[in-house]
Amino acid sequence: MSIRELVLKNRSYRRFYEEYRLDRDVPLELVDLARLSSSGANLQSLKYLLSTEPEQNARIFDTLGWAGYLKEWDGPGEGERPSGYIVVLFDQNIAKTPFWDHGIAAQSILLGAAERGLGGCMFGNIRKDDLRASLGIEDHLEILLVIALGKPKEEVRLVPLGPDGDVKYYRDADGIHYVPKRALNDIIHEPHHPKEA
Amino acid sequence: MSIRELVLKNRSYRRFYEEYRLDRDVPLELVDLARLSSSGANLQSLKYLLSTEPEQNARIFDTLGWAGYLKEWDGPGEGERPSGYIVVLFDQNIAKTPFWDHGIAAQSILLGAAERGLGGCMFGNIRKDDLRASLGIEDHLEILLVIALGKPKEEVRLVPLGPDGDVKYYRDADGIHYVPKRALNDIIHEPHHPKEA
Repeated sequence: MSIRELVLKNRSYRRFYEEYRLDRDVPLELVDLARLSSSGANLQSLKYLLSTEPEQNARIFDTLGWAGYLKEWDGPGEGERPSGYIVVLFDQNIAKTPFWDHGIAAQSILLGAAERGLGGCMFGNIRKDDLRASLGIEDHLEILLVIALGKPKEEVRLVPLGPDGDVKYYRDADGIHYVPKRALNDIIHEPHHPKEA
Repeated sequence: MSIRELVLKNRSYRRFYEEYRLDRDVPLELVDLARLSSSGANLQSLKYLLSTEPEQNARIFDTLGWAGYLKEWDGPGEGERPSGYIVVLFDQNIAKTPFWDHGIAAQSILLGAAERGLGGCMFGNIRKDDLRASLGIEDHLEILLVIALGKPKEEVRLVPLGPDGDVKYYRDADGIHYVPKRALNDIIHEPHHPKEA
Protein backbone atom coordinates (compact mmCIF):
# COMPACT_ATOMS: atom_id res chain seq x y z
CA MET A 1 0.00 0.00 0.00
CA SER A 2 1.41 3.43 -0.86
CA ILE A 3 1.81 5.98 1.90
CA ARG A 4 -0.99 8.01 0.31
CA GLU A 5 -3.35 5.03 0.40
CA LEU A 6 -2.34 4.39 3.99
CA VAL A 7 -2.86 8.04 5.00
CA LEU A 8 -6.30 7.97 3.38
CA LYS A 9 -7.21 4.72 5.10
CA ASN A 10 -6.07 6.13 8.44
CA ARG A 11 -9.13 8.07 9.53
CA SER A 12 -10.21 8.89 13.08
CA TYR A 13 -12.55 6.07 14.05
CA ARG A 14 -14.78 6.21 17.10
CA ARG A 15 -16.90 3.04 16.83
CA PHE A 16 -15.36 -0.41 16.86
CA TYR A 17 -16.10 -4.12 16.93
CA GLU A 18 -15.40 -4.33 20.64
CA GLU A 19 -15.45 -8.13 20.56
CA TYR A 20 -12.23 -7.99 18.54
CA ARG A 21 -9.47 -8.90 20.97
CA LEU A 22 -6.28 -6.95 20.59
CA ASP A 23 -3.22 -9.07 21.25
CA ARG A 24 -0.71 -7.08 23.30
CA ASP A 25 1.90 -7.71 20.59
CA VAL A 26 -0.02 -5.36 18.29
CA PRO A 27 0.31 -2.15 20.33
CA LEU A 28 3.85 -3.26 21.16
CA GLU A 29 4.74 -3.45 17.46
CA LEU A 30 3.05 -0.11 16.89
CA VAL A 31 5.03 1.55 19.68
CA ASP A 32 8.14 0.11 18.08
CA LEU A 33 7.28 2.14 14.97
CA ALA A 34 7.13 5.22 17.18
CA ARG A 35 10.43 4.26 18.80
CA LEU A 36 12.10 4.06 15.39
CA SER A 37 10.71 7.44 14.30
CA SER A 38 12.53 10.70 14.76
CA SER A 39 12.63 12.54 18.07
CA GLY A 40 13.56 16.14 18.89
CA ALA A 41 17.27 16.31 19.79
CA ASN A 42 16.99 12.51 19.84
CA LEU A 43 15.98 12.75 23.51
CA GLN A 44 13.25 10.10 23.18
CA SER A 45 11.34 11.35 26.18
CA LEU A 46 8.08 9.53 25.47
CA LYS A 47 6.83 6.50 27.38
CA TYR A 48 3.88 4.34 26.40
CA LEU A 49 1.31 2.62 28.55
CA LEU A 50 -0.43 -0.23 26.72
CA SER A 51 -3.91 -1.43 27.56
CA THR A 52 -5.61 -4.43 26.00
CA GLU A 53 -7.52 -5.85 28.97
CA PRO A 54 -11.23 -5.01 29.32
CA GLU A 55 -10.96 -3.83 32.91
CA GLN A 56 -8.14 -1.40 32.19
CA ASN A 57 -9.74 -0.38 28.89
CA ALA A 58 -12.89 0.61 30.81
CA ARG A 59 -10.88 2.79 33.20
CA ILE A 60 -9.32 4.64 30.28
CA PHE A 61 -12.61 4.92 28.39
CA ASP A 62 -14.20 6.65 31.38
CA THR A 63 -11.73 9.54 31.17
CA LEU A 64 -12.06 10.35 27.45
CA GLY A 65 -14.06 13.16 25.85
CA TRP A 66 -15.54 11.82 22.63
CA ALA A 67 -16.19 13.74 19.41
CA GLY A 68 -16.65 17.28 20.67
CA TYR A 69 -18.64 18.31 17.61
CA LEU A 70 -21.26 15.55 17.95
CA LYS A 71 -23.28 17.14 20.72
CA GLU A 72 -25.93 14.43 20.74
CA TRP A 73 -23.42 11.63 21.13
CA ASP A 74 -21.60 10.71 24.33
CA GLY A 75 -19.24 8.24 22.72
CA PRO A 76 -19.54 4.62 21.68
CA GLY A 77 -21.92 2.39 23.59
CA GLU A 78 -21.07 -1.03 24.97
CA GLY A 79 -20.05 -3.35 22.20
CA GLU A 80 -18.64 -0.51 20.07
CA ARG A 81 -15.78 0.60 22.28
CA PRO A 82 -12.07 0.32 21.48
CA SER A 83 -10.25 -2.97 22.03
CA GLY A 84 -7.23 -1.24 23.45
CA TYR A 85 -5.37 1.98 24.09
CA ILE A 86 -1.91 3.45 24.03
CA VAL A 87 -1.41 6.23 26.56
CA VAL A 88 1.42 8.51 25.44
CA LEU A 89 3.40 9.93 28.36
CA PHE A 90 6.14 12.54 28.50
CA ASP A 91 8.94 11.70 30.93
CA GLN A 92 9.88 15.01 32.50
CA ASN A 93 12.98 13.44 34.00
CA ILE A 94 14.40 13.15 30.47
CA ALA A 95 13.61 16.46 28.79
CA LYS A 96 12.05 19.87 29.31
CA THR A 97 9.71 19.51 26.34
CA PRO A 98 8.51 16.61 24.22
CA PHE A 99 8.85 18.92 21.21
CA TRP A 100 6.30 17.53 18.70
CA ASP A 101 7.42 13.94 19.25
CA HIS A 102 3.93 12.84 20.32
CA GLY A 103 2.52 13.87 16.95
CA ILE A 104 5.25 11.98 15.11
CA ALA A 105 4.75 8.95 17.34
CA ALA A 106 0.96 8.94 17.11
CA GLN A 107 1.06 9.18 13.34
CA SER A 108 3.52 6.27 13.04
CA ILE A 109 1.33 4.23 15.40
CA LEU A 110 -1.92 4.90 13.56
CA LEU A 111 -0.42 4.35 10.10
CA GLY A 112 0.84 1.01 11.41
CA ALA A 113 -2.65 0.25 12.71
CA ALA A 114 -4.20 1.14 9.34
CA GLU A 115 -1.77 -1.21 7.60
CA ARG A 116 -3.01 -4.01 9.88
CA GLY A 117 -6.67 -3.31 9.07
CA LEU A 118 -7.15 -1.60 12.42
CA GLY A 119 -7.93 1.98 13.22
CA GLY A 120 -8.16 4.40 16.06
CA CYS A 121 -8.42 7.93 17.25
CA MET A 122 -6.14 10.38 19.06
CA PHE A 123 -7.56 12.01 22.20
CA GLY A 124 -6.33 15.20 23.78
CA ASN A 125 -9.60 15.75 25.62
CA ILE A 126 -8.87 13.57 28.66
CA ARG A 127 -9.68 13.94 32.34
CA LYS A 128 -6.00 13.63 33.05
CA ASP A 129 -6.12 13.71 36.84
CA ASP A 130 -8.65 10.89 36.85
CA LEU A 131 -6.62 8.86 34.38
CA ARG A 132 -3.45 9.39 36.40
CA ALA A 133 -5.13 8.26 39.60
CA SER A 134 -6.95 5.35 37.99
CA LEU A 135 -3.83 3.89 36.36
CA GLY A 136 -1.29 4.91 38.98
CA ILE A 137 0.79 7.07 36.64
CA GLU A 138 3.65 8.77 38.47
CA ASP A 139 3.85 12.55 38.69
CA HIS A 140 6.92 12.94 36.47
CA LEU A 141 5.03 11.39 33.56
CA GLU A 142 2.83 13.99 31.87
CA ILE A 143 -0.16 12.55 30.03
CA LEU A 144 0.04 13.92 26.49
CA LEU A 145 -2.57 11.96 24.64
CA VAL A 146 -4.45 8.70 24.39
CA ILE A 147 -4.69 6.63 21.22
CA ALA A 148 -7.71 4.33 21.01
CA LEU A 149 -7.29 1.20 18.89
CA GLY A 150 -9.69 -1.35 17.47
CA LYS A 151 -11.39 -2.78 14.44
CA PRO A 152 -13.37 0.12 12.94
CA LYS A 153 -17.13 -0.27 12.70
CA GLU A 154 -17.92 2.95 10.91
CA GLU A 155 -17.31 4.62 7.60
CA VAL A 156 -15.50 7.94 7.55
CA ARG A 157 -15.53 10.13 4.43
CA LEU A 158 -13.50 13.21 3.69
CA VAL A 159 -15.42 16.06 2.05
CA PRO A 160 -14.37 19.54 0.93
CA LEU A 161 -14.93 22.39 3.33
CA GLY A 162 -18.22 24.15 2.55
CA PRO A 163 -18.42 27.84 1.61
CA ASP A 164 -19.10 28.72 5.25
CA GLY A 165 -15.67 27.35 6.18
CA ASP A 166 -17.10 25.11 8.88
CA VAL A 167 -14.63 22.39 9.95
CA LYS A 168 -17.05 20.50 12.21
CA TYR A 169 -17.41 16.84 11.35
CA TYR A 170 -20.94 15.38 11.27
CA ARG A 171 -22.88 12.18 10.70
CA ASP A 172 -25.71 11.41 8.35
CA ALA A 173 -28.78 9.33 9.14
CA ASP A 174 -26.91 6.16 8.18
CA GLY A 175 -24.17 6.90 10.70
CA ILE A 176 -21.58 7.76 8.06
CA HIS A 177 -19.10 10.21 9.50
CA TYR A 178 -18.07 13.17 7.31
CA VAL A 179 -14.91 15.20 7.87
CA PRO A 180 -14.53 18.52 6.00
CA LYS A 181 -10.97 19.10 4.84
CA ARG A 182 -9.45 22.35 3.63
CA ALA A 183 -8.31 22.40 -0.01
CA LEU A 184 -4.61 22.04 -0.74
CA ASN A 185 -4.49 25.54 -2.25
CA ASP A 186 -5.87 27.00 0.95
CA ILE A 187 -3.07 25.69 3.13
CA ILE A 188 -0.14 26.67 0.92
CA HIS A 189 1.31 29.93 2.08
CA GLU A 190 2.70 32.24 -0.56
CA PRO A 191 5.10 34.81 0.88
CA HIS A 192 3.75 38.27 0.13
CA HIS A 193 6.61 40.62 0.78
CA PRO A 194 9.96 38.85 0.75
CA LYS A 195 12.54 41.43 1.66
CA GLU A 196 15.63 41.65 -0.46
CA ALA A 197 18.74 40.52 1.36
CA MET B 1 7.11 -1.12 1.24
CA SER B 2 5.67 -1.86 4.67
CA ILE B 3 5.20 1.00 7.11
CA ARG B 4 7.99 -0.49 9.22
CA GLU B 5 10.40 -0.48 6.27
CA LEU B 6 9.36 3.08 5.50
CA VAL B 7 9.81 4.22 9.10
CA LEU B 8 13.28 2.64 9.13
CA LYS B 9 14.21 4.24 5.83
CA ASN B 10 13.02 7.61 7.09
CA ARG B 11 16.04 8.79 9.03
CA SER B 12 17.07 12.39 9.73
CA TYR B 13 19.44 13.29 6.90
CA ARG B 14 21.63 16.37 6.94
CA ARG B 15 23.79 16.01 3.80
CA PHE B 16 22.29 15.89 0.35
CA TYR B 17 23.06 15.84 -3.35
CA GLU B 18 22.33 19.53 -3.70
CA GLU B 19 22.42 19.31 -7.50
CA TYR B 20 19.21 17.27 -7.31
CA ARG B 21 16.45 19.62 -8.34
CA LEU B 22 13.24 19.29 -6.41
CA ASP B 23 10.20 19.83 -8.58
CA ARG B 24 7.64 21.94 -6.69
CA ASP B 25 5.08 19.18 -7.26
CA VAL B 26 6.98 16.99 -4.81
CA PRO B 27 6.59 19.14 -1.66
CA LEU B 28 3.06 19.89 -2.85
CA GLU B 29 2.21 16.17 -2.92
CA LEU B 30 3.86 15.74 0.46
CA VAL B 31 1.85 18.57 1.99
CA ASP B 32 -1.24 16.89 0.58
CA LEU B 33 -0.36 13.85 2.73
CA ALA B 34 -0.27 16.19 5.73
CA ARG B 35 -3.58 17.73 4.68
CA LEU B 36 -5.22 14.29 4.59
CA SER B 37 -3.85 13.35 8.02
CA SER B 38 -5.71 13.92 11.25
CA SER B 39 -5.85 17.29 12.96
CA GLY B 40 -6.83 18.21 16.53
CA ALA B 41 -10.54 19.10 16.63
CA ASN B 42 -10.23 19.01 12.83
CA LEU B 43 -9.26 22.70 12.95
CA GLN B 44 -6.50 22.30 10.34
CA SER B 45 -4.64 25.37 11.51
CA LEU B 46 -1.36 24.62 9.73
CA LYS B 47 -0.09 26.43 6.65
CA TYR B 48 2.90 25.40 4.57
CA LEU B 49 5.45 27.52 2.79
CA LEU B 50 7.24 25.60 0.03
CA SER B 51 10.74 26.45 -1.15
CA THR B 52 12.49 24.79 -4.08
CA GLU B 53 14.38 27.73 -5.58
CA PRO B 54 18.08 28.15 -4.74
CA GLU B 55 17.76 31.78 -3.68
CA GLN B 56 14.92 31.12 -1.25
CA ASN B 57 16.55 27.88 -0.10
CA ALA B 58 19.66 29.84 0.84
CA ARG B 59 17.62 32.29 2.92
CA ILE B 60 16.06 29.43 4.86
CA PHE B 61 19.36 27.57 5.24
CA ASP B 62 20.90 30.64 6.86
CA THR B 63 18.41 30.52 9.74
CA LEU B 64 18.77 26.84 10.70
CA GLY B 65 20.75 25.35 13.56
CA TRP B 66 22.28 22.10 12.37
CA ALA B 67 22.95 18.95 14.39
CA GLY B 68 23.35 20.35 17.90
CA TYR B 69 25.38 17.35 19.07
CA LEU B 70 28.01 17.63 16.31
CA LYS B 71 29.98 20.48 17.82
CA GLU B 72 32.68 20.44 15.14
CA TRP B 73 30.19 20.68 12.30
CA ASP B 74 28.33 23.83 11.26
CA GLY B 75 26.01 22.12 8.82
CA PRO B 76 26.35 20.94 5.26
CA GLY B 77 28.74 22.79 2.97
CA GLU B 78 27.93 24.05 -0.49
CA GLY B 79 26.95 21.18 -2.74
CA GLU B 80 25.53 19.14 0.15
CA ARG B 81 22.64 21.36 1.16
CA PRO B 82 18.94 20.50 0.88
CA SER B 83 17.16 20.92 -2.45
CA GLY B 84 14.09 22.36 -0.79
CA TYR B 85 12.19 23.11 2.37
CA ILE B 86 8.71 23.06 3.80
CA VAL B 87 8.16 25.69 6.49
CA VAL B 88 5.32 24.63 8.78
CA LEU B 89 3.30 27.56 10.09
CA PHE B 90 0.53 27.78 12.66
CA ASP B 91 -2.28 30.14 11.70
CA GLN B 92 -3.27 31.82 14.95
CA ASN B 93 -6.38 33.24 13.29
CA ILE B 94 -7.75 29.69 13.12
CA ALA B 95 -6.99 28.13 16.49
CA LYS B 96 -5.46 28.77 19.91
CA THR B 97 -3.08 25.82 19.66
CA PRO B 98 -1.85 23.61 16.85
CA PHE B 99 -2.17 20.67 19.27
CA TRP B 100 0.42 18.15 17.99
CA ASP B 101 -0.68 18.56 14.37
CA HIS B 102 2.81 19.63 13.27
CA GLY B 103 4.25 16.31 14.44
CA ILE B 104 1.55 14.38 12.58
CA ALA B 105 2.06 16.49 9.47
CA ALA B 106 5.85 16.31 9.52
CA GLN B 107 5.79 12.54 9.89
CA SER B 108 3.36 12.12 6.98
CA ILE B 109 5.54 14.42 4.88
CA LEU B 110 8.81 12.65 5.63
CA LEU B 111 7.35 9.16 5.19
CA GLY B 112 6.13 10.33 1.81
CA ALA B 113 9.61 11.63 1.04
CA ALA B 114 11.18 8.32 2.06
CA GLU B 115 8.79 6.46 -0.24
CA ARG B 116 10.03 8.65 -3.12
CA GLY B 117 13.70 7.92 -2.35
CA LEU B 118 14.13 11.33 -0.77
CA GLY B 119 14.88 12.27 2.80
CA GLY B 120 15.04 15.19 5.12
CA CYS B 121 15.24 16.50 8.59
CA MET B 122 12.92 18.39 10.95
CA PHE B 123 14.29 21.59 12.48
CA GLY B 124 13.02 23.28 15.60
CA ASN B 125 16.26 25.18 16.11
CA ILE B 126 15.52 28.12 13.81
CA ARG B 127 16.30 31.82 14.06
CA LYS B 128 12.61 32.48 13.70
CA ASP B 129 12.70 36.28 13.65
CA ASP B 130 15.26 36.21 10.85
CA LEU B 131 13.27 33.64 8.90
CA ARG B 132 10.07 35.64 9.32
CA ALA B 133 11.74 38.84 8.09
CA SER B 134 13.59 37.14 5.27
CA LEU B 135 10.52 35.41 3.83
CA GLY B 136 7.94 38.05 4.73
CA ILE B 137 5.86 35.78 6.95
CA GLU B 138 2.95 37.63 8.55
CA ASP B 139 2.72 37.96 12.32
CA HIS B 140 -0.33 35.75 12.76
CA LEU B 141 1.59 32.80 11.34
CA GLU B 142 3.79 31.23 14.01
CA ILE B 143 6.81 29.37 12.66
CA LEU B 144 6.63 25.88 14.17
CA LEU B 145 9.30 23.97 12.31
CA VAL B 146 11.20 23.63 9.07
CA ILE B 147 11.49 20.39 7.12
CA ALA B 148 14.54 20.13 4.86
CA LEU B 149 14.18 17.90 1.80
CA GLY B 150 16.62 16.41 -0.67
CA LYS B 151 18.35 13.35 -1.98
CA PRO B 152 20.33 11.99 1.01
CA LYS B 153 24.09 11.75 0.66
CA GLU B 154 24.88 10.09 3.95
CA GLU B 155 24.28 6.83 5.71
CA VAL B 156 22.44 6.88 9.04
CA ARG B 157 22.48 3.85 11.32
CA LEU B 158 20.40 3.19 14.41
CA VAL B 159 22.32 1.68 17.32
CA PRO B 160 21.24 0.67 20.82
CA LEU B 161 21.75 3.17 23.60
CA GLY B 162 25.02 2.49 25.41
CA PRO B 163 25.20 1.68 29.15
CA ASP B 164 25.84 5.37 29.90
CA GLY B 165 22.42 6.21 28.46
CA ASP B 166 23.85 8.84 26.14
CA VAL B 167 21.39 9.79 23.38
CA LYS B 168 23.80 12.01 21.42
CA TYR B 169 24.23 11.03 17.80
CA TYR B 170 27.75 10.92 16.39
CA ARG B 171 29.73 10.27 13.21
CA ASP B 172 32.61 7.93 12.55
CA ALA B 173 35.70 8.67 10.48
CA ASP B 174 33.85 7.58 7.32
CA GLY B 175 31.08 10.09 7.97
CA ILE B 176 28.52 7.45 8.88
CA HIS B 177 25.99 8.95 11.24
CA TYR B 178 24.95 6.85 14.28
CA VAL B 179 21.76 7.44 16.25
CA PRO B 180 21.37 5.71 19.64
CA LYS B 181 17.81 4.53 20.22
CA ARG B 182 16.26 3.41 23.51
CA ALA B 183 15.16 -0.22 23.66
CA LEU B 184 11.47 -1.01 23.30
CA ASN B 185 11.33 -2.40 26.84
CA ASP B 186 12.66 0.87 28.22
CA ILE B 187 9.86 2.98 26.79
CA ILE B 188 6.94 0.78 27.83
CA HIS B 189 5.44 2.04 31.05
CA GLU B 190 4.05 -0.53 33.45
CA PRO B 191 1.58 0.97 35.92
CA HIS B 192 2.91 0.40 39.41
CA HIS B 193 -0.02 1.11 41.68
CA PRO B 194 -3.31 0.93 39.85
CA LYS B 195 -5.97 1.86 42.36
CA GLU B 196 -8.99 -0.34 42.59
CA ALA B 197 -12.12 1.34 41.40
